[in-house]
Amino acid sequence: MAKETRDRPVVGIDLGGTKILAGVVDAKGKIIGQAKRATKPEDGVEAVIERMAKTVREAVNTAELSSGDIAAVCSCAPGTIDAERGVVRFAPNLHNWENVPLAKLLGDKLDLPAFVENDVNLGTLGEYVLGAGQGIDNVVGIFVGTGIGGGLILDGKLWGGWRGGAGEVGHTVVLAEGPVCGCGSRGCVEALASRTAIERDIWAGVKAGRPSLIPEIMQRDKRQRLTSGALAEAFEKGDPLVREVIGRAQFYLGVLVGNLVNIIDPQMVIIGGGVAEALGEKYVESIRPVAYQYFINKRGSGDVQIVSAMLGDNAALLGAAVHARRQLGAG
Amino acid sequence: MAKETRDRPVVGIDLGGTKILAGVVDAKGKIIGQAKRATKPEDGVEAVIERMAKTVREAVNTAELSSGDIAAVCSCAPGTIDAERGVVRFAPNLHNWENVPLAKLLGDKLDLPAFVENDVNLGTLGEYVLGAGQGIDNVVGIFVGTGIGGGLILDGKLWGGWRGGAGEVGHTVVLAEGPVCGCGSRGCVEALASRTAIERDIWAGVKAGRPSLIPEIMQRDKRQRLTSGALAEAFEKGDPLVREVIGRAQFYLGVLVGNLVNIIDPQMVIIGGGVAEALGEKYVESIRPVAYQYFINKRGSGDVQIVSAMLGDNAALLGAAVHARRQLGAG
Repeated sequence: MAKETRDRPVVGIDLGGTKILAGVVDAKGKIIGQAKRATKPEDGVEAVIERMAKTVREAVNTAELSSGDIAAVCSCAPGTIDAERGVVRFAPNLHNWENVPLAKLLGDKLDLPAFVENDVNLGTLGEYVLGAGQGIDNVVGIFVGTGIGGGLILDGKLWGGWRGGAGEVGHTVVLAEGPVCGCGSRGCVEALASRTAIERDIWAGVKAGRPSLIPEIMQRDKRQRLTSGALAEAFEKGDPLVREVIGRAQFYLGVLVGNLVNIIDPQMVIIGGGVAEALGEKYVESIRPVAYQYFINKRGSGDVQIVSAMLGDNAALLGAAVHARRQLGAG
Repeated sequence: MAKETRDRPVVGIDLGGTKILAGVVDAKGKIIGQAKRATKPEDGVEAVIERMAKTVREAVNTAELSSGDIAAVCSCAPGTIDAERGVVRFAPNLHNWENVPLAKLLGDKLDLPAFVENDVNLGTLGEYVLGAGQGIDNVVGIFVGTGIGGGLILDGKLWGGWRGGAGEVGHTVVLAEGPVCGCGSRGCVEALASRTAIERDIWAGVKAGRPSLIPEIMQRDKRQRLTSGALAEAFEKGDPLVREVIGRAQFYLGVLVGNLVNIIDPQMVIIGGGVAEALGEKYVESIRPVAYQYFINKRGSGDVQIVSAMLGDNAALLGAAVHARRQLGAG
């Protein structure tokens, strides 16, 4: 006999530009089965949906369950999402998906209720319900990786904004005359503090002859792009160039946190993403005091918590599971 | 016989550092009686409350009503407000009021239900319900005067934040290495685009010998401080220094609007305050195209309206009336 909806597991999917990650998540928020596959967005929408469905089935098998045991599925996507209609409005990282009715396509293929939301929004929701933000109803999430994204939880609910575009905190201009961002504007915090920005500044230093461990580490690991792991290793070993560049990035993130607190007045700011995860607690430790300086309401400002994310790579997947449950009214 | 609460007028009070403005507002949002008095915060809390009560009674008389006809009173205050408890947490412009239970003090004195909220929050609420934002449920208000403040309407409700400190949009850092702000930080938009910042830059130009109509206008009007009216006059007459300085301020306000849209994704941004009002539609016209440039979600970005406020000096007072009604459940 089928269990009640609220007790049945759901599947959360983290759909990114390079990989699809699916996880079966039980009612307690535990991942009980997982699978992974390349996205290959260059093959087109239909092929990606097919691969997503395969990854979901594989995750369900891994959990030793069958499709009938699953209550719903929710996928995140990197881009602007119309969550209500389940449509990916625009996703540059998925070879420019535009107005793709992902929820319907995926739901039909899997014969399950299906939902869609933005990846960093769901990462924030995941951290709020199952990670660092448990019990805190007003949370801003900031995720630092190749780019910088974010999400807002207001009064316990994900704030998507009017067009599903809220939480684009990486495109907060904090240095109007600063470097050009991928978006074309100058001085976005993404152009100052993302891994991409850090990489740009480190290479500029290396090319100018400043000593750094980075070229050696990358050669050893046979990497073309600077990974968060390589950054963390050089940082740990006291590489002066890496310390300076990351220090500057931390400063601008502190300014961003100050801005967000002054605008939204949340109780907690959670900082996650690949860079944060690789650098650990030290990373947030240097952001915190800068942010506090920039709070306009200094009174009670110590009560605004600025903390590291807890869920790592699984934040979006778990957030997707939470979102699916909430959409079913079983959250 | 007493009318039903929803039909009875309320009194909105705009409590500022220099003046108290009280207005009797009917159920349709029309001001039917008004009174004004100096604040004189240097006389202390008790004296200010007494003056507020007098101003309210005078406004009620002007409306040819008596106290019993009034359903409630709501005052705004410049500072951090605990709206739920009716307490002014901290108001630097009121000679550093700290933890003043304004709602209780005023309510006892007038024998009426009394409420308190932040001034720019109420200005935004006023514009939303009775002004430029009618029918638009997600609105950001920006008010440019001596300083720069703001308010957020999310899903039709005033978003006060966790500590009642939300909407401090003037302390969004947009130029991290920019001029020092009154708050001590560098590069807040208030330090770049408020009337205070404009005044600073115009005097620097005048002192350096750049031609401007400003000294002449101020001498003629016997003014010590640069008013928004004087600015508007010089701007109208094509004063090159004033045009340059205001142009720069408009640029940074455009950046601010971009930031706020990227973070919150509202449907409308309303720009008001003394500077906006004096300069008229031309002011917002030059802010708009800058803001659009900075939107990260360009698709549908034209749908985000950037408009001038409509209620002028009465925005906060009318917002206070709306808030009183909503608190009574009659909104």
